[in-house]
Amino acid sequence: MHEFDLIARYFRPLAEGYAGSYALTDDAATVDVPEGMQLVVTKDLIISGVHFMGTEAPGVVARKLLRVNLSDLAAKGAEPVCYFLGGALPKDAQESWVAAFAAGLAEDQKEFSISLAGGDTTATPGPLTLSLTALGLVPKGQMLTRSGAKAGDLLYVSSFIGDAALGLKSVRGEIESRSFLEDRYHLPRPRLSIGQQLRGVASACMDISDGLVQDLGHLCTTSGVGAKVEAIKVPVSNAASASQGEPWFMETILTGGDDYELLFTVPQDQKDKVPQGCRLIGEITAGSDVSVLDANGYPMTFSKTGYKHF
Amino acid sequence: MHEFDLIARYFRPLAEGYAGSYALTDDAATVDVPEGMQLVVTKDLIISGVHFMGTEAPGVVARKLLRVNLSDLAAKGAEPVCYFLGGALPKDAQESWVAAFAAGLAEDQKEFSISLAGGDTTATPGPLTLSLTALGLVPKGQMLTRSGAKAGDLLYVSSFIGDAALGLKSVRGEIESRSFLEDRYHLPRPRLSIGQQLRGVASACMDISDGLVQDLGHLCTTSGVGAKVEAIKVPVSNAASASQGEPWFMETILTGGDDYELLFTVPQDQKDKVPQGCRLIGEITAGSDVSVLDANGYPMTFSKTGYKHF
Repeated sequence: MHEFDLIARYFRPLAEGYAGSYALTDDAATVDVPEGMQLVVTKDLIISGVHFMGTEAPGVVARKLLRVNLSDLAAKGAEPVCYFLGGALPKDAQESWVAAFAAGLAEDQKEFSISLAGGDTTATPGPLTLSLTALGLVPKGQMLTRSGAKAGDLLYVSSFIGDAALGLKSVRGEIESRSFLEDRYHLPRPRLSIGQQLRGVASACMDISDGLVQDLGHLCTTSGVGAKVEAIKVPVSNAASASQGEPWFMETILTGGDDYELLFTVPQDQKDKVPQGCRLIGEITAGSDVSVLDANGYPMTFSKTGYKHF
Repeated sequence: MHEFDLIARYFRPLAEGYAGSYALTDDAATVDVPEGMQLVVTKDLIISGVHFMGTEAPGVVARKLLRVNLSDLAAKGAEPVCYFLGGALPKDAQESWVAAFAAGLAEDQKEFSISLAGGDTTATPGPLTLSLTALGLVPKGQMLTRSGAKAGDLLYVSSFIGDAALGLKSVRGEIESRSFLEDRYHLPRPRLSIGQQLRGVASACMDISDGLVQDLGHLCTTSGVGAKVEAIKVPVSNAASASQGEPWFMETILTGGDDYELLFTVPQDQKDKVPQGCRLIGEITAGSDVSVLDANGYPMTFSKTGYKHF
């Protein structure tokens, strides 16, 4: 496989819908930003054996990579425009792998109206390493941030929490296999429409990638507030509920990563504008304490609060 | 070392000059594009042991990473705005390494008026892998591309060719040590000012990263033209000339990579606007033949035409 052949055969078709990509024949791409709009840029890097197992179908790896970045755009209220892909492929990578990877991207490009605009491909003596930079648009000054939560604001999540963490247990054979949960682990649903509806409504927003408790901590730190979550209000899917009796259940739900649901705060007087299906799980408080209360109103403790990268 | 501490201590200071970075506390950054301007985006990925040796000072690795991307912006006539950094660090990476790496970035941020705006840091079981996405601005529709060269256009380079290739030989101990050349290998000079002066003047432009002959081939393919280069006109520095008697000399100059000089074409009636110091090395021709003629006017042949990534 030669770099330029790979690009021409598998990646150029992904860029053809986007004029600013110059069909990947140039050193750079152009992006137009309409008047009154502002660009939102996010970048994520995933590594085989670290962020995914390496045994997944190549199309699944591709789609997860794209979706975790789209989830960041969703959390900022942005509309996707285009993305840039950096791929470091092991020297023994097969062309069929690249073909299936590109097919996964093609599938999700259609679903999420985004196009490849540029990138870089190279060989590595290490594990497959993928970097993606996604660009989106918001009306100027309307990007949702992590910093606007105020004491008294209501705290919401966009949907079920913990499915992906249980999905990972299922993939690993630690619980009986449940395909719904595995699917949620492999293919997060970027909440683009919800994020866009939250512009001008949410006071703070982020996506949950490192676990609800840890990411809520980040949101609170950035906003300079505390929070109280009622564990009983955290929505759990039927598929996940099957494990409800396990001693690890609640901790896994609340601290497991890979949810890619939105976590957001809304001033009391805006609560009627919260999109349908989102669930109230608690409230923002003064101070800096972040606590999760059990069904009896006692603060819960966790052996770890979420995914650590080092 | 913890990811969030690393970011706070070493990378946040690099982003403080850029409001859209939200001091690296958010999921994404914002970028404003003034009316009448267009964004130019480029992405490069470098891996220890592949694109650099791994024995370089961390600050040198940082600056080369930034500069190879700035060189792409230069080649497109763009003015740098901000960049996004993805770093996959080996698990045994030392905090002192990260500190020196960030110090290198800080130095070049000042020199090239660019700021860190966001990114992602993670651990890898493989070699140090760095990805950088650089954003710049051009007046709308004025990005220099690879595709506009026409038969009869004049072919130029921005400065000496081959210094970096000889610098690599010097670093490797294959020739007697010459610090000028090693410096040119480690620290390319992105030709930002020349690139910006070429807007509306050059018909095609790119930067030379994979060797003059190979990259000229890319430019010609994209433009649908051929080219004739007179080897004797290709400018060579005094430091490089010391190896002039070696049998490998001319091939190394013409096909060695890492020059990061601009290669560009200019219609005959625009030649007075070519920035000072740039050198005429040949001419664009009809057809698709790319040939380099020796001092006697005979086409030269090369055992390899440049750097191959796979």
